[in-house]
Amino acid sequence: MWQYIPPLRDMRFVIDEVLKAPAAWPAMQGLEDLDADMAAQVLEEAGRFASEILAPTNGPGDLEGCTWKDGEVTTPAGYKAAYQAFVDGGWPALACDPECGGQGLPELLNAALFEMLVGANHAWTMYPGLLHGAYEVLHQHASGWLRDTYLPKVTSGEWLSTMCLTESHAGSDLGLLRTKAVPQADGSYALTGNKIFISGGDQDMTPNIVHLVLARLPDAPPGTKGISLFLCPKWLPDGTRNAARCDSIEKKMGLKGSATSVMSFDGATGWLLGEPHRGLQAMFLMMNAARLHVAMQGMGHLEAATQNALAYAAERVQSRAPGKPEGAPKGAADPIAYHPAMRRQLWALQARTEAARVLCYWTAQALDEQARHPDAAVRAAAGDRATLLTPVLKAFMTDHGHYGADRALGIWGGHGYIHEYGIEQLVRDSRIALIYEGTNEIQAIDLVVRKILPDGGVKFGALLDWASAQCEGGAHAAAARAGLQALREAVAALQAEAASDAELPFRAADDLLFAVGEALLACAWARTDAVAAQRLAAGQGDAAFYQRKRLLAQFQHDWLSGELSARLAAVRAARAALPFLPTV
Amino acid sequence: MWQYIPPLRDMRFVIDEVLKAPAAWPAMQGLEDLDADMAAQVLEEAGRFASEILAPTNGPGDLEGCTWKDGEVTTPAGYKAAYQAFVDGGWPALACDPECGGQGLPELLNAALFEMLVGANHAWTMYPGLLHGAYEVLHQHASGWLRDTYLPKVTSGEWLSTMCLTESHAGSDLGLLRTKAVPQADGSYALTGNKIFISGGDQDMTPNIVHLVLARLPDAPPGTKGISLFLCPKWLPDGTRNAARCDSIEKKMGLKGSATSVMSFDGATGWLLGEPHRGLQAMFLMMNAARLHVAMQGMGHLEAATQNALAYAAERVQSRAPGKPEGAPKGAADPIAYHPAMRRQLWALQARTEAARVLCYWTAQALDEQARHPDAAVRAAAGDRATLLTPVLKAFMTDHGHYGADRALGIWGGHGYIHEYGIEQLVRDSRIALIYEGTNEIQAIDLVVRKILPDGGVKFGALLDWASAQCEGGAHAAAARAGLQALREAVAALQAEAASDAELPFRAADDLLFAVGEALLACAWARTDAVAAQRLAAGQGDAAFYQRKRLLAQFQHDWLSGELSARLAAVRAARAALPFLPTV
Repeated sequence: MWQYIPPLRDMRFVIDEVLKAPAAWPAMQGLEDLDADMAAQVLEEAGRFASEILAPTNGPGDLEGCTWKDGEVTTPAGYKAAYQAFVDGGWPALACDPECGGQGLPELLNAALFEMLVGANHAWTMYPGLLHGAYEVLHQHASGWLRDTYLPKVTSGEWLSTMCLTESHAGSDLGLLRTKAVPQADGSYALTGNKIFISGGDQDMTPNIVHLVLARLPDAPPGTKGISLFLCPKWLPDGTRNAARCDSIEKKMGLKGSATSVMSFDGATGWLLGEPHRGLQAMFLMMNAARLHVAMQGMGHLEAATQNALAYAAERVQSRAPGKPEGAPKGAADPIAYHPAMRRQLWALQARTEAARVLCYWTAQALDEQARHPDAAVRAAAGDRATLLTPVLKAFMTDHGHYGADRALGIWGGHGYIHEYGIEQLVRDSRIALIYEGTNEIQAIDLVVRKILPDGGVKFGALLDWASAQCEGGAHAAAARAGLQALREAVAALQAEAASDAELPFRAADDLLFAVGEALLACAWARTDAVAAQRLAAGQGDAAFYQRKRLLAQFQHDWLSGELSARLAAVRAARAALPFLPTV
Repeated sequence: MWQYIPPLRDMRFVIDEVLKAPAAWPAMQGLEDLDADMAAQVLEEAGRFASEILAPTNGPGDLEGCTWKDGEVTTPAGYKAAYQAFVDGGWPALACDPECGGQGLPELLNAALFEMLVGANHAWTMYPGLLHGAYEVLHQHASGWLRDTYLPKVTSGEWLSTMCLTESHAGSDLGLLRTKAVPQADGSYALTGNKIFISGGDQDMTPNIVHLVLARLPDAPPGTKGISLFLCPKWLPDGTRNAARCDSIEKKMGLKGSATSVMSFDGATGWLLGEPHRGLQAMFLMMNAARLHVAMQGMGHLEAATQNALAYAAERVQSRAPGKPEGAPKGAADPIAYHPAMRRQLWALQARTEAARVLCYWTAQALDEQARHPDAAVRAAAGDRATLLTPVLKAFMTDHGHYGADRALGIWGGHGYIHEYGIEQLVRDSRIALIYEGTNEIQAIDLVVRKILPDGGVKFGALLDWASAQCEGGAHAAAARAGLQALREAVAALQAEAASDAELPFRAADDLLFAVGEALLACAWARTDAVAAQRLAAGQGDAAFYQRKRLLAQFQHDWLSGELSARLAAVRAARAALPFLPTV
């Protein structure tokens, strides 16, 4: 019933025709030999892994969950074998540096890979989900024997990794954390403290686990400027068990196949990564990569919800619809896909999903340009764009992923509430993505207070100029550009009013972030429509495919463009007073 | 951590001061002896049951769930004892006819009772949740020995009851159902067929179960006009086990303490209730009562989410807020209730919750007026109002209950995803309320296509007139009335355009229903504000209570009134084409 079919056709459309990425690869450092066919082959292989190996473990793994006994975690049946196949396929190293054993492929393909993994099984994907970030931290900060011992194993995925940040009193506010690191005579550190919400804190899939742990040195200043980063393996290089222990795993709403661990470090041996007291900077390297991957989770959730809802609505017959497509058979009841309320939801799901893919891949492409473009000015501009787009996408995509799945559940009616139909699991699994790697409210503050306002909106203006250029051609360019202009004015007004009301940007941040997302979504449709119109005019390719894209662009314009107006109205409403709560 | 504190103060405020219900009781048939103090005492007792007996079984019951073995269901620990206490307290018969052993109290108090039961433990409340509907069906349609045998036991709650409607291919479309009823020589019927999604299809809480079953007689016409209603007990009057069996229970997203059963009737003995082929009409009597109770579920979810979010946000300390209340201590971090994004969510939760209670109780009051008012014209007008308000509330309240709880989960951050904090269970439990007793999309069609448009909007206009009268006084009357006027114009436009586009009302129905809900919510705040302003001016009562109400009314006006505009814009957008899906 529940299935995951890799959306390869649409991925290729976005990569090849909307982004025209393959045309740019020959000039990009390290991508000289990559072409569209090779990329398509990588995606096809990844899709086969996701749909054939991974997807079958998704529902059963949720029912079985992880088990904990005496500090050791057992993952659900099939997880370990799927992970072995993942490592054997070389997938962990897809976007890693070839000098470290990586395949050196672009972040664009890595993002598409993660979209498919999450669409097939989010809980399982939590285990390798942090590998790429750990690779980046070690690649940049580990040296000598530490690098030689750990970097190759993390690059290949032979050993999995964790990010040990959160403590029970220190979640969004890492400045409050208390775990201590005491220097030892041999150059190592003894780590002592407790961490919570550690994904994969223990598991039975790899013979060792590389914990990356935030802790304070004895002379550390208070707050976020006194935090250092340590590498602390489950098993020490001499084969003895380190004093890093999984004390229990959480009973969660979803992701039941992922072991969310309570960890205790009881004088565990670790080694410093990077400079003392500069651990947060090192960790943020990991978190920025992680934030785009969390956006890709929302993408995977949306795609999985949409394709399954479409399939169910086409099959499920219930009541007569007030209208039918021409030539449809007359029966006592019609497929629910004919009913207006369902049709509207199904169009909306598709319109969100396919434009979201354009937004996500645009951002991954910007990261590739930042890292590999020959022109320094292009690299800098792409970096600025990625910096602005990352918090927008993290919040916007996870919100649409979860609430899209939750609304989609209604298409199944009562069956949607039952585990075997799959959608309720997706709703549960997707909820955490709005919270972890920086809550969506923190993304909004990051975007508005730290990234848009400090330079007077200059870089944000450049993002809007870039988006405007993307809209060229087709039927919806003017409407999409009007949205960008409204956004520009909203930011200017916010900037002016913030001078006399310093709290205003915080009150307006959530809606402004979503307004940016909505405006960019309209640009993605304008661009898609222009490409489709061009193909149709030229008589190229599958006409039905491009006609459907144009219908979706029109649907976005007619039915969904009110979202942007509503968000901008909310930004204006945020000028009103927001008293402190009398109950506090 | 998770708690349920009965909102008795606010309930009394709404009943006594906003609705002024006690002032009307002396003139109402059967309520002559009821007064405000007696009502308050009933609510206090009900609140004690909910918070002290029921709430402690909520979290553990979710983890334990129901177990099925050989056709028999075991409910979670504590469920049976809580139910015995519920029956001993006389709660099932609260609003039943004193001639049948009921207490004859108004639906208003029964609604408040159900709000508290669901707020404390929704899964448990599923078992007695259908009792009142079953009572109404038996009260109206059972006679002779059938009435004598079953009505008293259902009234007292000594035996629980089920509604056996759904079959796997017949959910929203009951016309498709196939269960057969063959007349027997002794006047009984042999029922054969399979039913799904039967709440409490088996349980260990009562010695017998009274199934109300929809089935077809041999000569039945096809579709909904050929369905009859039967009473089919688990145990027959002669003490033999009837051939009605629970074949399995579902693995669900939530309500894990409620046994959602797959039932088979294998020539089970039943007796006809009401006229042959008129079973749906009899069952709809049950469903209309059930729909207001489902709205009260949304109310209970909202209240539980709101009060727990407020408590958590006041305790949890994390990061410095950009502003603080005067006199607040300076520390390294502040309660998250100071942070603007959290403050906004907490105000919004409270503004929704407290106005929703006014809407719900208004509707329950209309049912009481319809049943008991001495003036026939008032009875008729109240009935018309209740008929329009019921689908609005069922959809509006369950949507806000679930999505309110889901948004509230974010206030807990990562802890919100963990079972022991309680909110994730509420999100899971609340999702089904949007679907059962008629999906929210069906409520919208019922409202717009069956109830607003057929009489040219006359009765709907009367509802708006009534709502406008409620707004009198205070600071927000004009704004609330402008909303009602916008609604009136939207319906007139819809009516005019439907003449040439018969599908339009179906496309616009969902947003129009929510627009009605939003406009009424603004009226509820206008009314509340007027009452609070009057009390403050007169120097009566607890000034802080009324000042807080006025702040909330202002918040609704400043921050939430955009919801109505957005919904009305969506109603206008629904004039656009909505093609059939190319994939179907």
